Amino acid sequence: MYKCTGSTLVIKGKCNSIVLDNCKKCALVFDDVISSCEIINCQSTQVQVNGKCPTVSIDKTDGCQVYLSKVSVSCEIVSAKSSEMNICVPKGTDGEFSEHPVPEQFKTMWNGKQLVTTASDLNL
Amino acid sequence: MYKCTGSTLVIKGKCNSIVLDNCKKCALVFDDVISSCEIINCQSTQVQVNGKCPTVSIDKTDGCQVYLSKVSVSCEIVSAKSSEMNICVPKGTDGEFSEHPVPEQFKTMWNGKQLVTTASDLNL
Repeated sequence: MYKCTGSTLVIKGKCNSIVLDNCKKCALVFDDVISSCEIINCQSTQVQVNGKCPTVSIDKTDGCQVYLSKVSVSCEIVSAKSSEMNICVPKGTDGEFSEHPVPEQFKTMWNGKQLVTTASDLNL
Repeated sequence: MYKCTGSTLVIKGKCNSIVLDNCKKCALVFDDVISSCEIINCQSTQVQVNGKCPTVSIDKTDGCQVYLSKVSVSCEIVSAKSSEMNICVPKGTDGEFSEHPVPEQFKTMWNGKQLVTTASDLNL
C-alpha cells in the first residue's frame, strides 16, 4: 500500500495489485497489474495504465481520471461512493484520448416486483 | 431544513419539500411531499412516507431505510455517494413490508463506443 500527497508514483513492470489509499492530487502510472488497482479515499487522482489491468476499483474518492491503454480498454471499473470520475479511452494512433464520465448518481424505482436501478445525470 | 440527532421528526400534512441534513440515527415520518425529500450527509436514518412523495434523494449518506406507502410505491429514489440503503415496499394488507437493498457499487466498462454501467453486489 502506497501513501502520498501531490506526487507522482511510477510502478514499472508487472505487479500483483496496487492500492492507493488516502492520497490527494496524486498521479499513479503503472505497467501491468495481475489482479486490480484500487483507489480508496482519494481526491483528484490520475491513474495511467500502460499495460494490462483487469480491474480498477474506485471507492470513496472524489476526482479520479483513469487513462486506459489499448490493451486494457476492456478493464472493469468498479465504483462506489465516489464522484468526478472519468475514463480516458485511447483513440486513433497518435496518443489521443476520449474522455467519458462515470455515472455517480443513480435512479432506483420499484417496478412492482423488484428495484430497478439506472444511471442518471451522466454529465454532472 | 431540519437538523437533529437521534430523534424522531414527524411532519403532518402536505409540504413542498423536506431536507434532512447531517443527522445521525434520526427517524423522519411525513405525510405528503409535493417535490422531494432529500437525505444528505446522514447516518443510520429511517424515512417513512405515509402519503405521496415523487422523489427521495439520498446523498453522502450511510444507512438509510426508506418505508414507502402504497400510494408512493412508484417513488423515484435518487442516490449518490451513499451506502447501506434499503427500500421497504408494502406487501399485503397487514402493514408488512418487503425490504430491498439499493445498489451502492457499480461496474463500468467500455463497449467500444461508450461506457456501460451496471449495478453490482446488490446484496452487500
